[in-house]
Amino acid sequence: MTTFPIIPGHEIVGIVTEVGSKVEKFRVGDRVGVGCLVGSCRTCPSCANDEENYCPKLIFTYNSTDFDGTRTYGGYSDVMVVDEHFAVHIPESLPLDAAAPLLCAGITVYSPLKFFGLDKPGLHVGVVGLGGLGHAAVKFAKAMGAKVTVISTSPGKKTEAIERLGTDEFLLSSDKAQIGAALGTLDGIIDTVSATHSVAQLLALLKSSGKLVLVGLPEKPLEVHAFAIVGGRKTLAGSFMGGIKETQEMLDFAAKHNITADIELIKFDYLNEAMARLAKADVKYRFVIDVANSI
Amino acid sequence: MTTFPIIPGHEIVGIVTEVGSKVEKFRVGDRVGVGCLVGSCRTCPSCANDEENYCPKLIFTYNSTDFDGTRTYGGYSDVMVVDEHFAVHIPESLPLDAAAPLLCAGITVYSPLKFFGLDKPGLHVGVVGLGGLGHAAVKFAKAMGAKVTVISTSPGKKTEAIERLGTDEFLLSSDKAQIGAALGTLDGIIDTVSATHSVAQLLALLKSSGKLVLVGLPEKPLEVHAFAIVGGRKTLAGSFMGGIKETQEMLDFAAKHNITADIELIKFDYLNEAMARLAKADVKYRFVIDVANSI
Repeated sequence: MTTFPIIPGHEIVGIVTEVGSKVEKFRVGDRVGVGCLVGSCRTCPSCANDEENYCPKLIFTYNSTDFDGTRTYGGYSDVMVVDEHFAVHIPESLPLDAAAPLLCAGITVYSPLKFFGLDKPGLHVGVVGLGGLGHAAVKFAKAMGAKVTVISTSPGKKTEAIERLGTDEFLLSSDKAQIGAALGTLDGIIDTVSATHSVAQLLALLKSSGKLVLVGLPEKPLEVHAFAIVGGRKTLAGSFMGGIKETQEMLDFAAKHNITADIELIKFDYLNEAMARLAKADVKYRFVIDVANSI
Repeated sequence: MTTFPIIPGHEIVGIVTEVGSKVEKFRVGDRVGVGCLVGSCRTCPSCANDEENYCPKLIFTYNSTDFDGTRTYGGYSDVMVVDEHFAVHIPESLPLDAAAPLLCAGITVYSPLKFFGLDKPGLHVGVVGLGGLGHAAVKFAKAMGAKVTVISTSPGKKTEAIERLGTDEFLLSSDKAQIGAALGTLDGIIDTVSATHSVAQLLALLKSSGKLVLVGLPEKPLEVHAFAIVGGRKTLAGSFMGGIKETQEMLDFAAKHNITADIELIKFDYLNEAMARLAKADVKYRFVIDVANSI
């Protein structure tokens, strides 16, 4: 539910210009980022476990009501005030603009790779959908040592997936022969698709005890045949962003493995065109707005 | 698919009367059991991992074709020949008849409790359906140190669950106030129901990162809303029996914790009546046939 007036923008990066008297984590001049969250209760079991993203009282970076009753406003802005707990350090080796999408797209795929044990070298990990989240999932899974297969409905993404992103294999969902040959071969799948799609095929691609993890949000309910999960002890799970501590860990991992998002840097005056292109999925893979040089 | 002639019967117990020359695990006179499996390839990754139950070539105790092309016949029989690998020792302290159902019902609930990490003391575990599998799940989960809540559509099972089985709490699925108060309280659920039922309510009963594990096989596909699993990083999984090594482990655990199935011992001449009562769910909780004294 959107409440107006709204100032959108998450995946925010910038330089600290001022700190409060009790701030310990940051100093003026630090390179910092803010992702999807700017608040949580800090006391519930999820918060105590550094999983603020699952706090029932979590406050989103924009379009949320803050604890003091005011609305939260996002990154389409020249300044931002945020509780230091919800800001992270951007490692020096990462360019700010290409690091920005890691703050949501990156952590959203990194967190389930870790939590569901898909971060062990030698595993075979599938990635469904090659967009903002999917391309980050390929990069993180590769850096964790997995063999990575991209599963897509678009034949045109094969070259892209293999040549540009270093994906090991590409499966076209509609190619029955390809799919048939790949049944039972994947240890896990990160499914980034929010359009309605069948999970039956994806579950069949998993080995016994394999895990299909949704990070997208298809609107219509998924149909899951009990035998598709009981027969091979398979898991259908979901995952939603990540906590602040893990977001910092993800950024440090990205710095170590030289992972950034592929972006197209734009200014505010290009925004309407960018939105039109976004609707056609015509971006590789994230637009990032250079706010400081736009206003 | 049933192929006639058929001799049914799994969850088989007895005394060894003869051993082959290469048998090492058993001697004449040993108390032994055979569950759902009598063969598997012994070389695939599942078999190598002691999970013969997920072997693509697994051979069921009856109604399967064995590697030599013959049919397998089950426990409604005065003798049985089985590869020692697929037989287990019944601990001395367990009565044979009440231990028998542990060989399928028992391992089917024990295995997911272990695999999905629901065996840690202090967890809150739900059990859906109070039949042969459900009552075993309650006993194992209690012995593992969980607080156990039975979730059922039958109000009549409340007394039974709490007074006879020592369940901590009872939730009537149709009672909205009870269910509402219990939302987000369970670490995991073992769902033993094979009738069509909604998993939405069960997913809502889970805490963040909670796990709903199906061991039953509803025929119609389940409807799963993506947000119901993404929002709280929840898992919908399945599990199918257990391997031979784990079946032995389960029996040893049962002996240590004095767990047996609640059974009604019958003879062959009662079989038609037993089947009629079974169709009405009128048994607490398993009929066991005393074959030796029936023929």
